[in-house]
Amino acid sequence: MSSKKRVCIVGSGNWGSAIAKIVGNNVMEKSDKFEKEVKMWVFEEMVNGRKLTEIINQDHENVKYLPGFKLPENVVAIPDVKDSAEGADILIFVLPHQFVRGVCKQLKGKVNDGATAVSLIKGFDVAEGGGILLISSVIRDQLGVPCAALMGANIANEVAMENYCEATIGCKDMKYGPLLKELFQTNYFRIVVIEDETTVEVCGALKNIVAVGAGFADGLGYGDNTKAAVIRLGLMEMVKFCEVFYPESQQGTFLESCGVADLVTTCYGGRNRRVAEAFVKTGKSIEELEKEMLNGQKLQGPPTAFEVNYMLKNKNMEERFPLFTAIHKICKKETDVKQFMDCLKNHPEHM
Amino acid sequence: MSSKKRVCIVGSGNWGSAIAKIVGNNVMEKSDKFEKEVKMWVFEEMVNGRKLTEIINQDHENVKYLPGFKLPENVVAIPDVKDSAEGADILIFVLPHQFVRGVCKQLKGKVNDGATAVSLIKGFDVAEGGGILLISSVIRDQLGVPCAALMGANIANEVAMENYCEATIGCKDMKYGPLLKELFQTNYFRIVVIEDETTVEVCGALKNIVAVGAGFADGLGYGDNTKAAVIRLGLMEMVKFCEVFYPESQQGTFLESCGVADLVTTCYGGRNRRVAEAFVKTGKSIEELEKEMLNGQKLQGPPTAFEVNYMLKNKNMEERFPLFTAIHKICKKETDVKQFMDCLKNHPEHM
Repeated sequence: MSSKKRVCIVGSGNWGSAIAKIVGNNVMEKSDKFEKEVKMWVFEEMVNGRKLTEIINQDHENVKYLPGFKLPENVVAIPDVKDSAEGADILIFVLPHQFVRGVCKQLKGKVNDGATAVSLIKGFDVAEGGGILLISSVIRDQLGVPCAALMGANIANEVAMENYCEATIGCKDMKYGPLLKELFQTNYFRIVVIEDETTVEVCGALKNIVAVGAGFADGLGYGDNTKAAVIRLGLMEMVKFCEVFYPESQQGTFLESCGVADLVTTCYGGRNRRVAEAFVKTGKSIEELEKEMLNGQKLQGPPTAFEVNYMLKNKNMEERFPLFTAIHKICKKETDVKQFMDCLKNHPEHM
Repeated sequence: MSSKKRVCIVGSGNWGSAIAKIVGNNVMEKSDKFEKEVKMWVFEEMVNGRKLTEIINQDHENVKYLPGFKLPENVVAIPDVKDSAEGADILIFVLPHQFVRGVCKQLKGKVNDGATAVSLIKGFDVAEGGGILLISSVIRDQLGVPCAALMGANIANEVAMENYCEATIGCKDMKYGPLLKELFQTNYFRIVVIEDETTVEVCGALKNIVAVGAGFADGLGYGDNTKAAVIRLGLMEMVKFCEVFYPESQQGTFLESCGVADLVTTCYGGRNRRVAEAFVKTGKSIEELEKEMLNGQKLQGPPTAFEVNYMLKNKNMEERFPLFTAIHKICKKETDVKQFMDCLKNHPEHM
């Protein structure tokens, strides 16, 4: 790890663009450690009659997913994912988790020897045989590179506004930890690096399920006490989920930004909460609301609830995670949302 | 513990009245275990030309501190604290922590042999010699009874509305735990009993300091990310505070309702947050705002910040708790609130 590192951002949605703003500026400031140009893969689409890559490269703004914020000029939008990743030493994955396998398939065999990845992706991959995989392990397996995780209480627009916040990098291989911290930390975006990579990533995925539950509570008209109970019972199921499926998990990780802080932010300010509230109030399906409310962005909570339920059902463990299970079934309209309160009232935590 | 238990509620503010509603109903339903009458000490004051005790006993409503909610008729308001506690087996302390010593002085020697207490009070008692004491230990020492603690994500009006929520009882002596659970739990007010009494109580006190910080962040115009960072850094200082001063503390307790859930609720919906936001926006003093905004209720965050700082300063440990220290100094106008962000940016958690 001696020469300058070349950075690529795989993804350019709301969060990807906010991160491009940070990373683009950081590599300029630390030009002894990083190459100046940051390539960013942009899924090409037409916006007001122009290609999105063109708009980004000429106007330095992602007008579709992060309007109102200038990106640094050294961030270059590339429509072909293979081209964007060519020669990269650090690959930042930040795209909806539904698209990871497709992207990795294209990148297979094209990635630099000695490259490393960091995933900002929330969700799981459904595996053969009834289980689920971490997104980082898909990246690791497909590309043959180590993969850290960066998660935290980071609503993208607020990060783009440079409001103070924190994030956690989980990085098992501590030789990459300090470099990743240098790449991401600013005076307003504060990073803690820990080794418990797995829990960092699992927290980032599961919190979106809990946020859907928080949105249900809001939609049903409850106040802060009830939402706090949903958040806490959700946190208890997150802890238990790690105990059962990732026994190497450290409880202290839940106190990092990726844990309780991200959970709180997502349950108050995030889009999963917002759409779930509308789900209760309008009676529309999640898919309809996603189209109406999110301007092309994808919702992560309901698919993550599905993936978790896929495994829990296969392992006959739905009842040990009653909140996760109820949220999934309500999203699928298998259970009426009015029964959500019964789930809370009968939660095994109070037996 | 065989005969029916007589319950007394020492205090009748917003939270005391909400608890009286629960406890009054529960003792009626569980008349095999509890005496029907619940005496509630009410600090006598005139409201619209009538005594508050008279209003409560005739109209069954605490029109000053919990207007709009009927209290059960078996809850009897008593203006003399000694009379209210006479013959009681279970004493529920729920009053501003500034008044505990005065009340205990009056009750000394008047309490039943074999009685037990439970404290719902948030705050510390400043001790001789530069330290602080838990409120429960003041009660224990003064009255010679065991004292458990009940804390949780419980904004009083929402509890009175019977919105679903949770609470934690910390009870070292497990012979009282199940009885206290029976006294407080309802189908919407869900109780978890744990043995780690001390941490339950410390969480209840310290969260109000953090809530003041959350209010500062709101007043300064920051969003959910920044508030989540304040909440999390506050939680880290709460954890460290317990490690340093109460080494028997269990980290798991922070995941109970008294920990993270109460912290979240208080930082979003509580009055400490609200007054702190106004403090930033108006430039008035905490004392002025307390008078203007709280209708006779007391604020717990600023005095708790003072008590904690009193000890930290004496022990030369202010720098190890930079958030608690900054919040205290800002309340006292020794530090400008604009420096609050510097405190966050330089927090040792990110070094």
